[in-house]
Amino acid sequence: MPLDAEIAARLKRDDDGLVPAIVQQHDTGEVLMLAWMDDEALHRTLTTGRATYWSRSRQEYWVKGDTSGHVQYVREVALDCDGDTLLVRVEQVGAACHTGDRTCFDADRLRVVQGAAPEPAER
Amino acid sequence: MPLDAEIAARLKRDDDGLVPAIVQQHDTGEVLMLAWMDDEALHRTLTTGRATYWSRSRQEYWVKGDTSGHVQYVREVALDCDGDTLLVRVEQVGAACHTGDRTCFDADRLRVVQGAAPEPAER
Repeated sequence: MPLDAEIAARLKRDDDGLVPAIVQQHDTGEVLMLAWMDDEALHRTLTTGRATYWSRSRQEYWVKGDTSGHVQYVREVALDCDGDTLLVRVEQVGAACHTGDRTCFDADRLRVVQGAAPEPAER
Repeated sequence: MPLDAEIAARLKRDDDGLVPAIVQQHDTGEVLMLAWMDDEALHRTLTTGRATYWSRSRQEYWVKGDTSGHVQYVREVALDCDGDTLLVRVEQVGAACHTGDRTCFDADRLRVVQGAAPEPAER
């Protein structure tokens, strides 16, 4: 059974048929990782409750946690206003990142100028 | 002045020279939107403290809030483990979405099976 036709009609895919999926821990709000879904990966995610992606490097479906044990149980999926990005809110078991970090964004902070931000009272 | 060479060396861009940027409200954790940056947009973001993107539809740089007033003051930028995704943590003024919603993910929740998720006690 394919992806629900009404959802498929709203999806805007890139040239490879993929949509980026932002993965967030549902309660803490941590952004865990970015992955990619095609229609079938989204269908499997919605109908199994297990986050399932398309691996661009391995060119195969990938159920998060099947190898590592670091499963993502899906709590909510939202499509954005343009239909070209998914937000997947999950219960992450263990580390989301293959490096062992909790998130894929823990290791490499870039230096950013802070001068332009107003004080809270000015907002 | 171009993007810092050490950062540029770590960036993995798509065929259009772009990297997806997940934009998150720094204190509440809300995922606000997804946008795209090339080297120059990232350089401007890091050196001005104002979130600056490449508009794929208009093919031009876009300083968030210049038209709408819904400015994003950048608090933190992180590059992910693969160097192919940015996480931009901002102070969002007003609505992040052009529809007037606070985030681009507010309007379109997809139905998802919940049966697979364990109870907290089982984790």
